[in-house]
Amino acid sequence: MFSICICKKCFEILNVRKEALRHNIDELKFEINFIKLSSPIDPTIQIDTFTDVVLIPCSDSSSGPVHAHKIVLGSHSPVFKAMFQNYMKESKHVIKVADVSYVALRAFVNYLYTAEVCLENQMAFGLFIFAKRYQVNHLKAYCEKFLIAELNEVNAISTYTFSKEHNAKRLLDSTLTWIVDNKEQFVRSEAYVKLKRTNPGIVADILEDCFSNDLLILP
Amino acid sequence: MFSICICKKCFEILNVRKEALRHNIDELKFEINFIKLSSPIDPTIQIDTFTDVVLIPCSDSSSGPVHAHKIVLGSHSPVFKAMFQNYMKESKHVIKVADVSYVALRAFVNYLYTAEVCLENQMAFGLFIFAKRYQVNHLKAYCEKFLIAELNEVNAISTYTFSKEHNAKRLLDSTLTWIVDNKEQFVRSEAYVKLKRTNPGIVADILEDCFSNDLLILP
Repeated sequence: MFSICICKKCFEILNVRKEALRHNIDELKFEINFIKLSSPIDPTIQIDTFTDVVLIPCSDSSSGPVHAHKIVLGSHSPVFKAMFQNYMKESKHVIKVADVSYVALRAFVNYLYTAEVCLENQMAFGLFIFAKRYQVNHLKAYCEKFLIAELNEVNAISTYTFSKEHNAKRLLDSTLTWIVDNKEQFVRSEAYVKLKRTNPGIVADILEDCFSNDLLILP
Repeated sequence: MFSICICKKCFEILNVRKEALRHNIDELKFEINFIKLSSPIDPTIQIDTFTDVVLIPCSDSSSGPVHAHKIVLGSHSPVFKAMFQNYMKESKHVIKVADVSYVALRAFVNYLYTAEVCLENQMAFGLFIFAKRYQVNHLKAYCEKFLIAELNEVNAISTYTFSKEHNAKRLLDSTLTWIVDNKEQFVRSEAYVKLKRTNPGIVADILEDCFSNDLLILP
């Protein structure tokens, strides 16, 4: 067993610094808790009377609209900000949002108020598209990080297809790296075997991308 | 020199934990940066067209009103929230604010959007009153912390008077503790000598409070 000798003073300094970091974390959490807004999505908060914008998911007419505030949407998204600045009508602003489910739209709006979201893969795909469209970089990075952490043999192909379709470079690189690092598990997976039978072109694309990225190192 | 022997593994774990804490801090800072709103006080942000409430400092008629958003004021202050819920007129809500300068009002509103303020003693006194009146506990604690850190022989008496007048228990306790810990410096200070001559009653109050709090320990 190797050991390191450090003097008592240095050890104490190390511990004090760690305590200071912990204290800093507590203060930052307190600040986040303060600065978060009451979300109009939260059913316990009855503040929707102050909303001045309505978002309607056009592809999901079965569900209701999502009410929000221009100040919140405009502060977090340069796209919304420009939209509102070019539209000064006093009446409630209505925005029709294409290609999105009601559930994803609610989660997106809620995130802009609270920086909180409960993700699973489909929701992360949906929110990534939203975050990219409205330039909400914090949410985009959050979804990418989640999808990368969740990579496995079941979702690697869908994550690959998604990242190619939506030009998500970081996600694509991480997916290819995961595939190469887990190549044996990947080529034996049910999803891969099925895809090779039904759509060998995509399999070729994946393997070609692995080659092009210099990720496949021959033994 | 005393030294402590720790094994290499424990030392590495300690360092990894410190790195993890630093990473956590970076992520929290990123989150705060995201969740902050564009303040209507910021002259570079032209979003005051979306405001739905106007605050007017009655005692400072020389300056203009401060425009804001109900969602922001109501999210951070239960007092504003109740006020808005009981007042549903569609036109812009006007609130006259007593006993406050225009500068403090602007700083207060800005804090509700950004959790940021540049403090000096007078501003901290002003914002503490505001934070207490509108129940913005985060700002109240921030002002108290600042005033405690800034205690010295010049401002100890005004901080004492302020904390008594506004029932600021934590600030009062810290001021009394500071006075006792620095009693020689305090009783020799210009402010103390002048106060004893012009208003010995307050000097008696201060010393009595030090006694009552069991802070003065006789040698």
